[in-house]
Amino acid sequence: MTSSNHENAAGPLTRLWGKIVGFALKLKKLGKDDPRRIIHSFKMGLALTLVSIFYYFKPLYEGFGLAAMWAILTVVVVFEFTVGSTLGRGLNRMLATLTAAALGVGAHRLATLSGETGEPILIALFVFIIAGIVTFLRFIPQIKARYDYGMLIFLLTFCLISVSGYRDEEVIEMAFERLSTIVIGSCTSVIVCIFICPVWIGVDLHNQIATNIEKLGNFLEGYGEEYFKVSEEGQPRDKSSILDGYKSVLSSSSKEETMANLARWEPRHGKFRFRHPWKQYLKVGSITRQCAFKIEALNSYLISEIQSPPEVRSIIQEASTAVSSECGKALKELASALRKMTKSSAAERHIANSKDAAENLKSVIRSSLSKHDDILQIIPAGAVASLLCEVVKCTEEIADAAHKLASLAHFKNAKPKVTPEQKELPSQGIVQPVSGIDGMHHVITINEPSQSLQENRNLPPAMAPRMEV
Amino acid sequence: MTSSNHENAAGPLTRLWGKIVGFALKLKKLGKDDPRRIIHSFKMGLALTLVSIFYYFKPLYEGFGLAAMWAILTVVVVFEFTVGSTLGRGLNRMLATLTAAALGVGAHRLATLSGETGEPILIALFVFIIAGIVTFLRFIPQIKARYDYGMLIFLLTFCLISVSGYRDEEVIEMAFERLSTIVIGSCTSVIVCIFICPVWIGVDLHNQIATNIEKLGNFLEGYGEEYFKVSEEGQPRDKSSILDGYKSVLSSSSKEETMANLARWEPRHGKFRFRHPWKQYLKVGSITRQCAFKIEALNSYLISEIQSPPEVRSIIQEASTAVSSECGKALKELASALRKMTKSSAAERHIANSKDAAENLKSVIRSSLSKHDDILQIIPAGAVASLLCEVVKCTEEIADAAHKLASLAHFKNAKPKVTPEQKELPSQGIVQPVSGIDGMHHVITINEPSQSLQENRNLPPAMAPRMEV
Repeated sequence: MTSSNHENAAGPLTRLWGKIVGFALKLKKLGKDDPRRIIHSFKMGLALTLVSIFYYFKPLYEGFGLAAMWAILTVVVVFEFTVGSTLGRGLNRMLATLTAAALGVGAHRLATLSGETGEPILIALFVFIIAGIVTFLRFIPQIKARYDYGMLIFLLTFCLISVSGYRDEEVIEMAFERLSTIVIGSCTSVIVCIFICPVWIGVDLHNQIATNIEKLGNFLEGYGEEYFKVSEEGQPRDKSSILDGYKSVLSSSSKEETMANLARWEPRHGKFRFRHPWKQYLKVGSITRQCAFKIEALNSYLISEIQSPPEVRSIIQEASTAVSSECGKALKELASALRKMTKSSAAERHIANSKDAAENLKSVIRSSLSKHDDILQIIPAGAVASLLCEVVKCTEEIADAAHKLASLAHFKNAKPKVTPEQKELPSQGIVQPVSGIDGMHHVITINEPSQSLQENRNLPPAMAPRMEV
Repeated sequence: MTSSNHENAAGPLTRLWGKIVGFALKLKKLGKDDPRRIIHSFKMGLALTLVSIFYYFKPLYEGFGLAAMWAILTVVVVFEFTVGSTLGRGLNRMLATLTAAALGVGAHRLATLSGETGEPILIALFVFIIAGIVTFLRFIPQIKARYDYGMLIFLLTFCLISVSGYRDEEVIEMAFERLSTIVIGSCTSVIVCIFICPVWIGVDLHNQIATNIEKLGNFLEGYGEEYFKVSEEGQPRDKSSILDGYKSVLSSSSKEETMANLARWEPRHGKFRFRHPWKQYLKVGSITRQCAFKIEALNSYLISEIQSPPEVRSIIQEASTAVSSECGKALKELASALRKMTKSSAAERHIANSKDAAENLKSVIRSSLSKHDDILQIIPAGAVASLLCEVVKCTEEIADAAHKLASLAHFKNAKPKVTPEQKELPSQGIVQPVSGIDGMHHVITINEPSQSLQENRNLPPAMAPRMEV
């Protein structure tokens, strides 16, 4: 009772304190989730303090005057979290200022030739026309993606130079001042950004693509167990399952495109070359997303109210779980190879296994499932099985795209590792071509090292581990 | 032969000309797709020319000095395509400048108290701390969504005021100048943006949500025909079908969120109130996207190589087509009511019909489909049927969310229209509750006007047309 009274009395204060604590915890979590954010904040402070030196030291101040403000302004707007973004903005700003300053000086000269009355009219006309054109050009998707900021700064500088030139005869000097301070501001930003704990957006994109594939792999590895666990308990599972990781993949499209656009600004770093195949990353990402849509459909059978009864599901349990878990393992191998930037054929075995399992699943359905009476009870289980077969195809497509990426990006070969499993089952990899009803391609996968060396000598690296029949 | 030689000779020139023509056509298409882009470009030119008056007229020039440049700069960076975006940036810029100017002046005063040696050190320290804090705060998602630009401008102004104050004793005057020119620039932008052919992002969001629902409706209306046409021709359809319109819905999530964030800045306009329920738009959008995922799964059966043979599909043709087309009609009615901003129960009848058809489909499957021999051939058709039943549920959810939106946004009631179809089938709307195996809720829909008036008097408007049993 007393504590309740106490709470009521101190209500507003307690609530305020609670809010402050909540906010602090939020900030702490933000920093913990990605400690690079804290470093970035320090870097921003450093870059701004560095550029403030322009005002502290007299010789520089006298050289640049008020235009030195532009250096500070440039750092604030150019300095971004990632190198790609900072470089992109910096280069855009410098190049746009250069061309706009030249054009602005030209426009100003042209206007002064027309006399006292004509000058303001001509300048207004120039500003109107250039502003209209530049604003319209910013709608072009290709320009918007990479040069939007440059177009903005072009317009800005052109207006400032041509309009202020009307008052100030030393227009060329002003243009030069603006350009040089912007170059200094941009370079300070870029140098601090690159040389102190750089955050490469290319690396982020690379990791995100790998993580997305891994998320699908996690889902598929756990799906079999989850689906048939439901059947035992007889009720839909808890929605907040760790399996839901794949959901973020569904809407990753625009983020990936932005990242690829920014990554193209970045110079060579680590294993990333200058012309790294960013477009292929987008392709891998897009195929991964296609697979995520299938997984969304699979997931809907986990939470659906319409379920096949346990006895129906148990018929396909073994084969389905095998398909799902082999696909999951294949995707996780692909993700791991991609993350390590190696060419690896470790996934091939799992893909071959998943195809075996899919054939097995089909024959189980044909032989056992059809004996069941109520077709309405069979269909959900059958649909899950058919979706799993689609997922096998998707997994293969992701593998193809990932292999192409590995060869385009010149990933190194992974050291061949022979797992105990492979030793036990030397002929497991050889799959007989089966003429299924679905017209799917079937694959002979050869795992024995000596044979594969002979067969694959003339194949491109990405294709080496498997041969399409 | 001659023409070929001619082409070779004029190769580079022809190619250049071709590129120019291609670029011009691209620009033309850009303007044709959305003529508001052309108007926006003119508006930008106008706003910049207007603000250039600050330099043309001497009295104003003498009043504001070089700071008038800030007015031009403000227009360039604040003037955006939509009112919400322009207002958001303008308000952010003004508010951030105001607070940062005050804080900057304070920091400058504090620094001067510490003497000649301490001053630059203290200012550098302030800049470092404020820059770090502001940069870190920008990572908070809620701040990033609405106040990112304000934070940037806050940092910018604080640095400019406190640093430049070190050289210029008239720091308060400078802060006032900067603030007043920014206010003038922002206001010019906002006024031109609102009063000349305004583009309301709220209207765009409203229309996009309606269009997305309509796209799903179009797909479903055409799906039945398309799926069974494939069966007749025996091969997958052409991929570039108009049915693919729904694909854009799959990845609309981030765009919708951005639009809703910007829409919240907009004042009351047309039928849109100040506190328009933008969050509910996002909910409708999200449920629509859920439905689009189901449709993506349905679509995969159109292009899949694994198909039920025509004789199997023809069994479910009538019932499936009915479910799909009734759902499609319901969605299109919902989209049309949403677009017109009216409360309408026109969709209810189609939803009830689609439920009837779904029950019918189930009994067709139970009675006829199970007689077929090869279960593997039945499953794809069965999966399509079961997906269609899921789509019925989705359609109902979209209808619920749309009705809630209609009541939250105080849409007006549509004038009741009695279609000839309704006259012919007066009792069609009454659906008997059927205890299906799936545990779905069933609905009694009452279409007869007199009865519905009696029954629904005490129900909230969104619920009025139907009663959950």
